[in-house]
Amino acid sequence: SSEADRIGCVMKDGQAIAPKCLQDPYLQAKELGWFGLHGKSEHGGQNVPYLAGAVIQELFIGASPGFFAYMGLTSGVATMIETFGSEDLQKRFVPKLRTGDFFGTMCLSEPHAGSDVGANSSSAQALGEGKYKIKGTKCWITGGDQDLSDNIVHTVLARVQGAPEGIKGLSLFVVPKYRVNDDGSNGEWNDVTLATVEHKMGYHSSATCVLNFGENQDCYGYLLGEENKGIIYMFQLMNEARIGSGLVGLGGASAAYQNALSYAKERVQGTHINEVQNPQASKVLIIEHPDVRFNLLGMKARVEAMRALLYGTSNLVDLERVAQTQEEKERLDSLVQILTPMCKGWCTEVGLDVARTGIQVLGGVGYTKDFPIERIYRDLRVATIYEGTTGIQALDLVGRKMTMKNGAFFMGVLKLFQEFVEEHEHHVSLQESVQLWSESCEKIGEIAMKIQGLLGERGMAGAALYATPYLMFFSAVSAGYFLLQQGVIASQQLEHLKREHQITAENATPFLQSNSEASFYDNKLKTIHFYMSAVLPTFESQIRPIERKVFDPLDVRL
Amino acid sequence: SSEADRIGCVMKDGQAIAPKCLQDPYLQAKELGWFGLHGKSEHGGQNVPYLAGAVIQELFIGASPGFFAYMGLTSGVATMIETFGSEDLQKRFVPKLRTGDFFGTMCLSEPHAGSDVGANSSSAQALGEGKYKIKGTKCWITGGDQDLSDNIVHTVLARVQGAPEGIKGLSLFVVPKYRVNDDGSNGEWNDVTLATVEHKMGYHSSATCVLNFGENQDCYGYLLGEENKGIIYMFQLMNEARIGSGLVGLGGASAAYQNALSYAKERVQGTHINEVQNPQASKVLIIEHPDVRFNLLGMKARVEAMRALLYGTSNLVDLERVAQTQEEKERLDSLVQILTPMCKGWCTEVGLDVARTGIQVLGGVGYTKDFPIERIYRDLRVATIYEGTTGIQALDLVGRKMTMKNGAFFMGVLKLFQEFVEEHEHHVSLQESVQLWSESCEKIGEIAMKIQGLLGERGMAGAALYATPYLMFFSAVSAGYFLLQQGVIASQQLEHLKREHQITAENATPFLQSNSEASFYDNKLKTIHFYMSAVLPTFESQIRPIERKVFDPLDVRL
Repeated sequence: SSEADRIGCVMKDGQAIAPKCLQDPYLQAKELGWFGLHGKSEHGGQNVPYLAGAVIQELFIGASPGFFAYMGLTSGVATMIETFGSEDLQKRFVPKLRTGDFFGTMCLSEPHAGSDVGANSSSAQALGEGKYKIKGTKCWITGGDQDLSDNIVHTVLARVQGAPEGIKGLSLFVVPKYRVNDDGSNGEWNDVTLATVEHKMGYHSSATCVLNFGENQDCYGYLLGEENKGIIYMFQLMNEARIGSGLVGLGGASAAYQNALSYAKERVQGTHINEVQNPQASKVLIIEHPDVRFNLLGMKARVEAMRALLYGTSNLVDLERVAQTQEEKERLDSLVQILTPMCKGWCTEVGLDVARTGIQVLGGVGYTKDFPIERIYRDLRVATIYEGTTGIQALDLVGRKMTMKNGAFFMGVLKLFQEFVEEHEHHVSLQESVQLWSESCEKIGEIAMKIQGLLGERGMAGAALYATPYLMFFSAVSAGYFLLQQGVIASQQLEHLKREHQITAENATPFLQSNSEASFYDNKLKTIHFYMSAVLPTFESQIRPIERKVFDPLDVRL
Repeated sequence: SSEADRIGCVMKDGQAIAPKCLQDPYLQAKELGWFGLHGKSEHGGQNVPYLAGAVIQELFIGASPGFFAYMGLTSGVATMIETFGSEDLQKRFVPKLRTGDFFGTMCLSEPHAGSDVGANSSSAQALGEGKYKIKGTKCWITGGDQDLSDNIVHTVLARVQGAPEGIKGLSLFVVPKYRVNDDGSNGEWNDVTLATVEHKMGYHSSATCVLNFGENQDCYGYLLGEENKGIIYMFQLMNEARIGSGLVGLGGASAAYQNALSYAKERVQGTHINEVQNPQASKVLIIEHPDVRFNLLGMKARVEAMRALLYGTSNLVDLERVAQTQEEKERLDSLVQILTPMCKGWCTEVGLDVARTGIQVLGGVGYTKDFPIERIYRDLRVATIYEGTTGIQALDLVGRKMTMKNGAFFMGVLKLFQEFVEEHEHHVSLQESVQLWSESCEKIGEIAMKIQGLLGERGMAGAALYATPYLMFFSAVSAGYFLLQQGVIASQQLEHLKREHQITAENATPFLQSNSEASFYDNKLKTIHFYMSAVLPTFESQIRPIERKVFDPLDVRL
């Protein structure tokens, strides 16, 4: 991935050329079926559980988020066509997307419509039989062009002539780069022109493109589902994509942690600080230095918290799919809806924190291209922006999800938390962690009330002002919930091992040092304790201005 | 600076070649005398106050921290030779450094001696008359080679044969790239070889080099001051350099803020959130969005706090230089000593936060090379590492400065804070800000006691564990002190303007909108209030694990 980063995507003769070194991983991923993780088996999908997909994706992202973007988008587009497309569209496109012969893209943004999707001005003129003539310019298209796959299947938001303004008048179209003949072979070029490849700080494995559709009035698109429902379909993809973006934060952070950890275990410098007055003291691995240990455990706790949140949410997605009653399905769906903006917003921000700290652990070499961590730091910087910025996620949480069904979704999450506290507040080895966490849980509800107060005083602007800090805090608490569930299991397992080996308080230390399984569970408990006592307060501090009703950002003249 | 960033420094025929586009700014800076800001006039220095220098340097850094590195190091080396060097060394090197004809470098690190300076293994063999034969490899040398200046004056830490081990056996040598003849012209090459130019994430205007001294046994160095006192002299330079590094955080952050602010005032997208239900609402500048305003005021508050800390400390440096009594000189020096690691550690970390937020304000374009902000973000990432990492600054504060003279330096700072609280706790327009700040002041002392407790329980490792969070919090409080001093003045000026224009509570709002001076002071007060109520708590939260005596990072198996 270093090579792909160095070379990047370039534009040549109107085409984007992906780094040559990606050819081999692409062919391998194709051969091994990694493009078809999700989706129905009749179209070549493996239909793996969402949770299993998340685990696999984390590993791909750890290797290269830029390359993973091709896979994630392709899978998302295939699922969208499979879910909403006509039988013909499904047959024509989905199998080739599931094999990775075709790649997919999402085309939402336009030069003056980024976060404001409703301002979209691309147009579609009906030709009959689900076929439309497409015209418009789309930007920030990840993988908008490349020379790896045989064809590219763009999904394009556009407005059918005469449709309402705003997001409610947008329809979604399948627009291939090359038309696809009935026998599946590529037909003529579909008048999709590559205008520019952006020069970015990172993510060099995939080109970010400006695309012109229908410059020569010859670009055909196929309507997906019904007219004017494009935004609903797109949100379906976006919701999945948002959990996927959260995985980008996790995968990058996890790779950064592994890199920092192994460096700290190899690099010798300085003496142990307890020996600082002894000139004869031998030099130690830097992992012996307290500051390095503080940084590493901070990274570990954040990585495990992100993983807990993302896997926990993915598991809820799977449970919802197999729920036996409508009521249970709706309950699980409401949890997923609330947790999705947290997965995206929080994990991308925290992933960036972890990558930043990782560079610090390496020191000077962390700033050089000799180690992958500087690339991770650059790659991750865009993850808080694409698929809806952190601010957009926060508005989705505070302005949409929390108000849904008169706050019933929100109350459902609080109920889940409350039940956990009641069950475990006197837990033998988690008591202090549960105590710290439950204090934050209470604040989640209190602060929601205070935000109502801000709304009363200053309207929507007041309620929106601290939506991002609230998202960050709420997410940290939600991640804590899933972490504590792991803690309960770790504690059980550790007790079980201790009984099995007849361990008492006296001989516990040597046992934990020698038994790697026991050590793993013990570390899990310490990591959770550190998360609750050192990490969670940093997010809780961000909501302080809500408590104090601070309106300076609205009132100051900038 | 974008062009210099894109081109970078390359190694060609054993020489580092700086980007050609730097030639012109270099010649202009030389002509305008910017290399000679500091130092005695008999050597061509302008001897400007340290505070004035800080203001000018902030601007240079805002344009290009990589180019500023040449200027800062050159000035520092000139001052060091001027302060400790023989008359001959002063005459031979200082005037050409002050004009910028020669550049200076600091050569401390070696492959196995970065933060652990004492492990230095470069050697010096005495030849008589202050001349030594130098041999060794130095790495991370900023501006270690370039083709801009006529000559390069390296200052090299090395151990004279037979000297003690550790830092107390290090001497400092002036080692030019080309020897300098008595008439000032360049003599022969001094056997300083460029081994490598590092491939870095940023700071592309100056090459970071590995240098070999004396590969051919023909490298001469001139002893600076006395043998075995090198580290003392180097610390003199480092102390100045550390305030300079803090300015790198400020200069980058300030440029990022200006960039984000002007973008937010030009970019139109979305409707005002209070109009979100109105499809006819007109589109607004993004500076109207609450989340953007929250981010911008957060950046502004941090920039002004960093500036207050750095200018405040620089002012103390100037006052110390002109102090009338030895007692006053020592008092001022002790304050500077305590504040210096805060200037370096805190401002570089916070500068990075601000650059990160700036990219968020711009959104997708912030991630591209079309705007300077992504370069600032990359450039600033190294500032928390060089000149002593944040962890090293924290140890300097907690392990060295705070324990000096039995804690008298530390008590001096607390006394200063206490006096301010007593004088202003009932201040008419700053009362709430002073109240919030004074609560944090009290914690500074309390937590220092708790760190003593950690020391008691776990030795130096316990005391060092949370040195960085403590540095961050203490610095935020110290910056708050200097901010509040500005607040007192702003409040006086605002009251004065109100009296002058006969303004009462009723007609204050239109007055603040129309009178730009009044608006400036009013904004200053709001910014300070936001700093105390929204920014300071984020640093205070970092000390929570000290309060709870959390030893997980020392106990966990990583």
